[in-house]
Amino acid sequence: MSAKKILENLMVNIVNGQVDVIDLAQPLNEETPVIHLPEQFSNTGGFKYIQLSKYNEGGPAWYWNDFVAGEHCGTHFDAPNHWVSGKEGDAVDTMPMKNMIGEARVIDITEKSSQNPDYCLTIGDIVAFEEKYGRIPEHSWVILYTGWGKYGQDKEKFFNIGSDGMPHTPGFTKEASIFLAQERNVLGVGVETVGTDAGIAATFDPPFPNHYYMHESNRYGLAQLANVDKLPPRGAILIATPLKITNGSGSPLRPIALVPKS
Amino acid sequence: MSAKKILENLMVNIVNGQVDVIDLAQPLNEETPVIHLPEQFSNTGGFKYIQLSKYNEGGPAWYWNDFVAGEHCGTHFDAPNHWVSGKEGDAVDTMPMKNMIGEARVIDITEKSSQNPDYCLTIGDIVAFEEKYGRIPEHSWVILYTGWGKYGQDKEKFFNIGSDGMPHTPGFTKEASIFLAQERNVLGVGVETVGTDAGIAATFDPPFPNHYYMHESNRYGLAQLANVDKLPPRGAILIATPLKITNGSGSPLRPIALVPKS
Repeated sequence: MSAKKILENLMVNIVNGQVDVIDLAQPLNEETPVIHLPEQFSNTGGFKYIQLSKYNEGGPAWYWNDFVAGEHCGTHFDAPNHWVSGKEGDAVDTMPMKNMIGEARVIDITEKSSQNPDYCLTIGDIVAFEEKYGRIPEHSWVILYTGWGKYGQDKEKFFNIGSDGMPHTPGFTKEASIFLAQERNVLGVGVETVGTDAGIAATFDPPFPNHYYMHESNRYGLAQLANVDKLPPRGAILIATPLKITNGSGSPLRPIALVPKS
Repeated sequence: MSAKKILENLMVNIVNGQVDVIDLAQPLNEETPVIHLPEQFSNTGGFKYIQLSKYNEGGPAWYWNDFVAGEHCGTHFDAPNHWVSGKEGDAVDTMPMKNMIGEARVIDITEKSSQNPDYCLTIGDIVAFEEKYGRIPEHSWVILYTGWGKYGQDKEKFFNIGSDGMPHTPGFTKEASIFLAQERNVLGVGVETVGTDAGIAATFDPPFPNHYYMHESNRYGLAQLANVDKLPPRGAILIATPLKITNGSGSPLRPIALVPKS
């Protein structure tokens, strides 16, 4: 089937609802949770509205806002140059365009994360997933389905700060990140939590190993995803188009998934 | 062909390059041109970086920025609630998800706009386009190809301020906007210029008629598009996913087009 015919068919299926378009973004507003790093580091200020006019003297016929945001605020994209290990890698404005579209492979660790909020994906989990759903292809996104997306508007549960003062949220073992980046050549990984590393990953060696190894291999990250529960284990197409910020290290974005109606 | 098969084929064609992914965004940085309204109105401040760290003491292993932007800054999306005529219509966070994907119909008025920078698309132009390329379908984007995108980084040519102090850039006649919004039920219109109305449209009746009539009918706008010259007159799929700003009137975004390789 020709490329032209495929696009024609895709369009028909979107209009008639045989392909669902799923919103993978959390709401972006002044309540949107943002990561809190230890005080010695610079922190993002999060999202703020600056209203310009709302059908009033500043603009009688129009409503609009300026806003302050962070490149890593709300549902967002991590580019390789976000991390020192990937500083020569892609920025959001230089990444190849075809990398903005990839198949999603969704690994469900909801049960393990509900039992242990520090749970980190292992190579064993990946192997078990591949036995059931096939080898993870190159040019795909691996989405970690932890169930955390349902806490996206509830800061207490979302960050899950323990009596030790640390956030306790799931992530990846170093070995799993290296395996996905180097043995599977994925586009990147996506998570529902505030960042692509586990809450306690500042204490790992190296700190934030998923960032370290993914970005070292020029792979990407997606964080604070919503509606991951609406994705099948395989077969959805994920479209993630970060803002074209010159030399941007990431960007808030509106990722969507195309899912065949079951 | 099943929806599942269509998505599988789409993914294969993107990876092997039979479907090109075209970047429709202009670079977003402190030089990005933004609209200038007469002084009695509030104006957007444009884009500004707020650097948080760059592999230094603020963040030894990471680089990131906060930023200030406008909902209508750089390549951006206009939601119906941007205009008083559409105030009960969609915001960027409430629009139906399937409206984020539509076929692009690209009307070339480059010659007319180079001869007359105030040129506005007429119903006659639309009829002539349809005679050649078929009726503009519902759920499609009409893209006005004026050639202005090549001035995206050159403020003087981009705004083309005349001796009268007014910007002189092409747009739509009121009648063409009404026709597209009400007789063709398009998703919206996209342009290469700073906004979806002609430069001198503040003097029209009503002022900014394309905004007025498109948003009144719950249609959208896309402005400051790049690479419109790389789109065929029909057959490209346009994906435009504004940030999920709560009650946002628009958003900077990274629109992309899927184009079958010719």
